[in-house]
Amino acid sequence: MCPAKIAEGETRGYVIPIGGAEEKIQNPVILKKFVELCGGEKARIVIIPTASQLDDTGATYEELFRALGVGNAVSLPIEGRDDALNEVNIAELEKATGIFMTGGNQLRLSTILGGTPIAQAIRRLNSAGVHVAGTSAGAAIMPEHMIAGGSADTLPNENGVTLAPGLGLINKVILDQHFSERNRWGRLMSAIAYNPFASALGIDEDTAVFIAPNNILEVVGSGSVLVIDPAGLQYSSMAEAGSGSALTMLGLKVHMLSSGSSYDTASREAFKP
Amino acid sequence: MCPAKIAEGETRGYVIPIGGAEEKIQNPVILKKFVELCGGEKARIVIIPTASQLDDTGATYEELFRALGVGNAVSLPIEGRDDALNEVNIAELEKATGIFMTGGNQLRLSTILGGTPIAQAIRRLNSAGVHVAGTSAGAAIMPEHMIAGGSADTLPNENGVTLAPGLGLINKVILDQHFSERNRWGRLMSAIAYNPFASALGIDEDTAVFIAPNNILEVVGSGSVLVIDPAGLQYSSMAEAGSGSALTMLGLKVHMLSSGSSYDTASREAFKP
Repeated sequence: MCPAKIAEGETRGYVIPIGGAEEKIQNPVILKKFVELCGGEKARIVIIPTASQLDDTGATYEELFRALGVGNAVSLPIEGRDDALNEVNIAELEKATGIFMTGGNQLRLSTILGGTPIAQAIRRLNSAGVHVAGTSAGAAIMPEHMIAGGSADTLPNENGVTLAPGLGLINKVILDQHFSERNRWGRLMSAIAYNPFASALGIDEDTAVFIAPNNILEVVGSGSVLVIDPAGLQYSSMAEAGSGSALTMLGLKVHMLSSGSSYDTASREAFKP
Repeated sequence: MCPAKIAEGETRGYVIPIGGAEEKIQNPVILKKFVELCGGEKARIVIIPTASQLDDTGATYEELFRALGVGNAVSLPIEGRDDALNEVNIAELEKATGIFMTGGNQLRLSTILGGTPIAQAIRRLNSAGVHVAGTSAGAAIMPEHMIAGGSADTLPNENGVTLAPGLGLINKVILDQHFSERNRWGRLMSAIAYNPFASALGIDEDTAVFIAPNNILEVVGSGSVLVIDPAGLQYSSMAEAGSGSALTMLGLKVHMLSSGSSYDTASREAFKP
């Protein structure tokens, strides 16, 4: 998969990966901005709680979005592949102005939604202008190439990360969440070491990137986003280094972005607030 | 302090920060290379165990160096400032072809040796050709600006690191050790955010950089060295960001180096093995 084709005259919606643990009550800047994008009180937000194995995750977000003034917020009860084929769920999704995928385990999202009409609808709707946000596992699933897992707290190496196909809403970035909090530098570097075609984003908790239709992302929230741009990579030892061995990678560019800063995923330029 | 002046016709010795936990028995590539530099069986290695609070640290390294064929390895019993003024210790140090500082707590090194004839002698001897290696705390103390401490596992910010004056054997780099193992990305970034004049080195365990008299460093050992080169920094929010707030830093260059790779701390070029 790659991002779904955008029909002539249409603009795709925002893609909004959140690094997990976004502030929900006191000062929910990320959720608020998402709600505004989706139409505020006229928004119709469909929640996909599939990543979570807690019964109340969907209901919690329904309440949160209503508290933020959303007229219509509904969680789809998709817990298995049957549910992802259910026409009632698909019909609900079609009415969304915004889609929100909760946290949990991204392998639940990929294994339950992968290849189903729900996954296809999310891609098609996003390409037609519907905004899609996701937190933690719900962020992980967004790119074409998803970080499925990996060893935390290790140096980058061939065994440092497990990649799997994601939803393919974006393909210019590889991303990881809970970045500073869970020390995922090693696994994010391992991921781009495999194929340095994409920019890598390490997104902290309570921090989101709002990727606009023009491919420029803006950082929102209290933490940082580490951007690794491997376009200028001069040398990588990845092919020769033995399994588990330390790597050499020369010529990476890095930006650390906090709220208000932006990055063009196409031209790979970074901008201050 | 800055690196001691090198007298005409002389060449300074290598400066060799080791990221801690270097392999000592099976395949001690780092210690072996240090011993060779110092003259092999003709080497006279003086160990400074001051960082450690274990009684046997000095004796352990004496044995290790002898096992590697060193004719003369002696540990100086410097446990307090009195010992750092003791002329017997200074006279022993003067005979060294190589000086080795053990791990422990770098604040013991800075508070016990700082401003003493022992510290002055280490600087003077290094500028006259004596090689100086140090592991963990013994590495931390080497630069002009030493990382004294900081919060691990956090995102880079104004409170992320505590800097203090070090021995000043090198001033073109700021370094941290146990880098991947203790997730010190945040505190190393915080350190260069204060003043991005130096290259930052994040040195893994069982990994060393051998900084040659010509300022080119080579990586030796099983791990990686992360080099952050802030020379091209376009923007930093450090001055405006509130205490503890996330930072924006645009335009950093990063190299990941493994064994055999090198980096010119003067020209800031990186080279593959």
